[in-house]
Amino acid sequence: MTADIERVEALLAAMTPEEKAGQLGSYWHRPEDPGSGDVAPMEGDMTGPDSFEAAIEHGLGHLTRVFGTAPVSVADGVADLRERQARVQKASRFGIPAIAHEECLTGFTAYGATIYPTPLAWGAAFDPELVEEVAAAIGRDLRAVGVDQGLAPVLDVVRDYRWGRVEESIGEDPYLVATVATAYVRGLQSTGLVATLKHFAGYSASRAARNHAPVGVGARELAEVLLPPFELAIREGGAGAVMPSYAAVDGVPPTASHALLTTLLRDAWGFGGTVVSDYWAVPFLRRTQRIAADDDGAGALALAAGVDVELPETVGFARLAAGPALDQAARRVLLQKGRLGLLDPGWEPRGDDGADLDSPANRALARRLAERSVVLLANDGTLPLRAAGGGPGRVAVIGTTAVQPRTFLGCYSFPNHVLAGYDGDDLGVAVPTLLEALRTELPDAAVPHAAGAAITGDDRSGFAAAAALAAQADVAIVAVGDLAGMFGSGTSGEGCDAPDLALPGVQAELVTAVLDTGTPVVLVVVSGRPYALGALAPRCAAVVQAFFPGEEGGAAIAGVLSGRVEPSGRLPVAVPRTPSGALPTYRAAPLGRRTDGISSLDPAPLYPFGHGLSYTTVEYRDLTLGAASMPADGRVDVTVTVRNAGRRPAAEVVQLYLTDHVAQTVRPVRELIGYLRVPLAPGETRRVTFDVHADRTSFPGLDLRRVVEPGTFTLAAGPSSEALPVAAELEITGDAPRVLAGARVMTTPARVE
Amino acid sequence: MTADIERVEALLAAMTPEEKAGQLGSYWHRPEDPGSGDVAPMEGDMTGPDSFEAAIEHGLGHLTRVFGTAPVSVADGVADLRERQARVQKASRFGIPAIAHEECLTGFTAYGATIYPTPLAWGAAFDPELVEEVAAAIGRDLRAVGVDQGLAPVLDVVRDYRWGRVEESIGEDPYLVATVATAYVRGLQSTGLVATLKHFAGYSASRAARNHAPVGVGARELAEVLLPPFELAIREGGAGAVMPSYAAVDGVPPTASHALLTTLLRDAWGFGGTVVSDYWAVPFLRRTQRIAADDDGAGALALAAGVDVELPETVGFARLAAGPALDQAARRVLLQKGRLGLLDPGWEPRGDDGADLDSPANRALARRLAERSVVLLANDGTLPLRAAGGGPGRVAVIGTTAVQPRTFLGCYSFPNHVLAGYDGDDLGVAVPTLLEALRTELPDAAVPHAAGAAITGDDRSGFAAAAALAAQADVAIVAVGDLAGMFGSGTSGEGCDAPDLALPGVQAELVTAVLDTGTPVVLVVVSGRPYALGALAPRCAAVVQAFFPGEEGGAAIAGVLSGRVEPSGRLPVAVPRTPSGALPTYRAAPLGRRTDGISSLDPAPLYPFGHGLSYTTVEYRDLTLGAASMPADGRVDVTVTVRNAGRRPAAEVVQLYLTDHVAQTVRPVRELIGYLRVPLAPGETRRVTFDVHADRTSFPGLDLRRVVEPGTFTLAAGPSSEALPVAAELEITGDAPRVLAGARVMTTPARVE
Repeated sequence: MTADIERVEALLAAMTPEEKAGQLGSYWHRPEDPGSGDVAPMEGDMTGPDSFEAAIEHGLGHLTRVFGTAPVSVADGVADLRERQARVQKASRFGIPAIAHEECLTGFTAYGATIYPTPLAWGAAFDPELVEEVAAAIGRDLRAVGVDQGLAPVLDVVRDYRWGRVEESIGEDPYLVATVATAYVRGLQSTGLVATLKHFAGYSASRAARNHAPVGVGARELAEVLLPPFELAIREGGAGAVMPSYAAVDGVPPTASHALLTTLLRDAWGFGGTVVSDYWAVPFLRRTQRIAADDDGAGALALAAGVDVELPETVGFARLAAGPALDQAARRVLLQKGRLGLLDPGWEPRGDDGADLDSPANRALARRLAERSVVLLANDGTLPLRAAGGGPGRVAVIGTTAVQPRTFLGCYSFPNHVLAGYDGDDLGVAVPTLLEALRTELPDAAVPHAAGAAITGDDRSGFAAAAALAAQADVAIVAVGDLAGMFGSGTSGEGCDAPDLALPGVQAELVTAVLDTGTPVVLVVVSGRPYALGALAPRCAAVVQAFFPGEEGGAAIAGVLSGRVEPSGRLPVAVPRTPSGALPTYRAAPLGRRTDGISSLDPAPLYPFGHGLSYTTVEYRDLTLGAASMPADGRVDVTVTVRNAGRRPAAEVVQLYLTDHVAQTVRPVRELIGYLRVPLAPGETRRVTFDVHADRTSFPGLDLRRVVEPGTFTLAAGPSSEALPVAAELEITGDAPRVLAGARVMTTPARVE
Repeated sequence: MTADIERVEALLAAMTPEEKAGQLGSYWHRPEDPGSGDVAPMEGDMTGPDSFEAAIEHGLGHLTRVFGTAPVSVADGVADLRERQARVQKASRFGIPAIAHEECLTGFTAYGATIYPTPLAWGAAFDPELVEEVAAAIGRDLRAVGVDQGLAPVLDVVRDYRWGRVEESIGEDPYLVATVATAYVRGLQSTGLVATLKHFAGYSASRAARNHAPVGVGARELAEVLLPPFELAIREGGAGAVMPSYAAVDGVPPTASHALLTTLLRDAWGFGGTVVSDYWAVPFLRRTQRIAADDDGAGALALAAGVDVELPETVGFARLAAGPALDQAARRVLLQKGRLGLLDPGWEPRGDDGADLDSPANRALARRLAERSVVLLANDGTLPLRAAGGGPGRVAVIGTTAVQPRTFLGCYSFPNHVLAGYDGDDLGVAVPTLLEALRTELPDAAVPHAAGAAITGDDRSGFAAAAALAAQADVAIVAVGDLAGMFGSGTSGEGCDAPDLALPGVQAELVTAVLDTGTPVVLVVVSGRPYALGALAPRCAAVVQAFFPGEEGGAAIAGVLSGRVEPSGRLPVAVPRTPSGALPTYRAAPLGRRTDGISSLDPAPLYPFGHGLSYTTVEYRDLTLGAASMPADGRVDVTVTVRNAGRRPAAEVVQLYLTDHVAQTVRPVRELIGYLRVPLAPGETRRVTFDVHADRTSFPGLDLRRVVEPGTFTLAAGPSSEALPVAAELEITGDAPRVLAGARVMTTPARVE
């Protein structure tokens, strides 16, 4: 590291301002085919140098998505990257290569790479360790082909279910998002790759859930809800890069916010990595946000705020002025290149042109995460289908979701992200459908299929055939949901924001038509956001929710339906009752969720945050505290006993919630402060202990400084945010609030005996 | 005034702490009949002293709504108030009476008092002078019966059309709200009454438009959009009282916010009046917002923040501790009593027990304001009905709105506000229906009626008869909309928040059924909020929007339909295209209203803010500036020529909008900075000049201080926010932003030649 610093300072001393600026720029070679349609609406009049030669003339900071813009083979991609790196090195007086970055949210966004479950499914798994394994596998594949940085994970906390990027988010609880995202960062960076935290910060709270619209949150809500995941991923995850959000927060675009990118991120949190702009966020300062008169002015604003690298190509950073800000940004980029080994003498482009990006090990990981993310919302005993006494003889499978593999894939999978409007069969990897998987799971049953309706549109002509099929079956599995896309090409995904939470198209009517046959219906929703099920679920025999479960999603869902897999996912977002229930309520202040007759609107969800059933019964008892009180810098053990009272194994997600009785600001009714996934054999009893530090009760006080306040708190445990059978009261002693300066304890360790 | 101050200081020196606290309390005698149902959901476990005697033992600050809780005659009310005041005086060692306050938003909320149009209709009239006249009339009636303070106007800027209290608000533009509300304050206080500004501040931006839910706005949005109306009404209206909002803003209830009630309101703005709590807002600090452990703690918090008087009864203020805060609040209340004459030697309860609260002069004023507030949204020439060549012979009138008088009345009218769920005929005043008025307007036509459907519910059994009636007519007038109520008893009003912007019940289907007959349809919407008309309006021959026009609303609407009245109202809110279009967009930042393919949602309204047609054509030309540039503290004349090019008279609302080309924060696409209602005879040409001060371009800069920034601005004029046929560019010269300290120029004077 010292060697890096010395080498970087020597380079800076030798570099011209143009060469320093070169290290802050980027280049994106996009094929001129429709595959680059994903960026069309954003690009507009914002383009960088015409030629690669012009772009790299004084050196280059980043090479943008060499693998990620069109279907290329690993061998071709590796060769392209190798050639470009050689040219970048040659163009630089100092032989410095670029940082090669790619998208990798649900896996490496390259043709033929494993498509893992989407982040909302990671949240549903409540399993940071497994997410860390998945991220490490993603990182290994990226490193294998010569990539240095991945533009993931997304740490936006869900604030409105209508937003198209809910599927890219981990959930509506800041603690769940923080812990799972930090695990992803650890996993990805364990391979030497740089992870990129996005989108810093507030993007998910954009006005009316419209992509890029301004964000109206107060400073306290930002500090309390939206910032903690970033803080944890930096402090405990050691994330190497941060990407500012597009959306202006209270009038200030984060890309131009010195308060966010310097005062908070670097000065307060000690972040030492690089800040890379979101694609075209720098010229957006001129074009759509109008805080700069031209591109050069936009670049100057961004640099001064704390942006180090402009992506995906050099527009606003083309003519940066010499000065301390330029030096500092160049220093950060060069230090990162040093840490990546890019400044090592004799460095040569790596890249295994025979790398298998969808190995059996990858697929097994994708399967395991998918299985743990499927949420059983309701069940009258119809599930599992493969019961002890034999299952149904005839299972009607209804819905496009059951046969269209793309319905399992998030927006940031290669086919959905890169190939806008793509509807071919070649997804680059095998994605078995739910229908195929069900036929495998139920070899003795007849399993016919009818589509009934498409995901979108108003064609009801298939209803009759679907209903007829269901009428003749013992049980009907109706699979409905989303088809992800970009900028309006899908029902979920970036730029695919929903007007309300009604199931897309006529799918709700299709479900009703099948319900009307009287055949028991198992409703399977495979989606990128929760949809309003209040009119459907009470009539169904069972309801299963999966959030874009990836290439192994069919087998995972079918496994849960058959009973081969024990359901263990929990909701990372609530499922609303009505289509207008767009906002999370579990963590809301009392008047944000209760009505008491004060409003005609009842915001109570149909299924609350944390909810999810298993095929057995888990009992909670004996919540005990290590002590009834503690000082404002103390800690306490909170222990709860869980027992599997049924005949099937389970993986119970034990959840611990905190309620502050009285505080100096209005506090949530309750908030998640700890959780643990606990395997339980039939009849098994285990004791789960959470090590709760007083810092975990802290919040931004009246003056926005984070405080631990003396007083009474309720700690409650149970299987969901609304089912908390055991609780105890804890006193924090003291005469005055304790102000937390600097780092704080942000996680609650848990152990099981 | 000096005498007042001396008298007050002498009183304070002589008073015990209990006597000072007594001046901060209040008492509400409510009859035990269902008429007091309006407050039931809020009251809960928050009650003051059981008896009047206990409440006034040490003196009393306010007497709450003596006239406003049940139908009482003027004579009985005056007698009751006189007796109570005598008892209050007698209980006080110093003979000090209470301040008698009442609600008066759409007129004195007493049985038999004139019911004026609701504030959203004031906004639609764009006519501050007329609103000032109305308020003076309201004030005279209140004073006539012995009332001292009115709890109006509402200065909340509309932020979500779903909110139930949109009808109580003036519109979505801060400048329109500020100017009209200030006119109301001037009018009301011209009679000696104290006006009360509510709700300070942020209430209209509550989460998901749920009444009382927390408000998520940033400090800049608060300063830019929500606070200016209060500032103007204090600085230029001299308002005597302010009421803090229920809803917590970024975690802090305004009732407990020292920053709002003291630092901003008193220290920065120099407010010298009293702060009175909203009803039960003090115990709410304990009960629902949990920032106090008990009622005494809640009272101490509110007092320390800057609340002077607790309404509607003494709960948290029952045991206030002695100290400077108590003295200061008592001083403010006593000074206000002094200004009201209540401390004058020999003061006796006034009250004319023969006062006519619904005089012909009142009704004429109510009629005039209603007429000016009706907005003609679309017209293919079907209107006016009483054309030169004779009108239609048979006019079918459809809809409950046409025959149910209460559909014209806002929530704060006596029948709707006090008598929750009331559906009797006795409204206290005569409210002619639209059907009656149309029959008067069209004496030569047959004007049959069919209800078709109720306002709420799903009964479609009347559709066929309505369609049959329409099929036989030359034109069908279909009147639909809201029925106001309280806490869920209506479709609009306090606590009557909407899940989306679909017309209530099956009214949209009724309109469609009538449209399907092929008879030309004139759609009349009489409502408390805008509703989505995208699926209906394009099929209608004409569309008319009225916002709860009050007791003379029937005649006003019928007059516009017939042509007796020239339509001159303009939209103070947009009319959305789809039911999900809940948020205003006209004043939004670019990315809050444009999509450019970046979001699948198109937020463009069907009819924009400021839109409204007349029966003639008005042309705009020659927008000229007195100078092409001015310094950052300069002013400039902006002149535009308007010409009535048609054959009928008009009252054109000339609107002036500002666009800031580049700024240090993200600015709205445009904002209203001036307007003037201009009568234009057929063929007449007039020149309208706006005197624009540079302060009118100011905004809260990056550090939240208000600045005028040098740069280029566009000034554009026209008949709506989206129709601006004339424009010019103005330069503000200078090297650096000018920071505005203290008062600023907040209005744009306009004159017409």
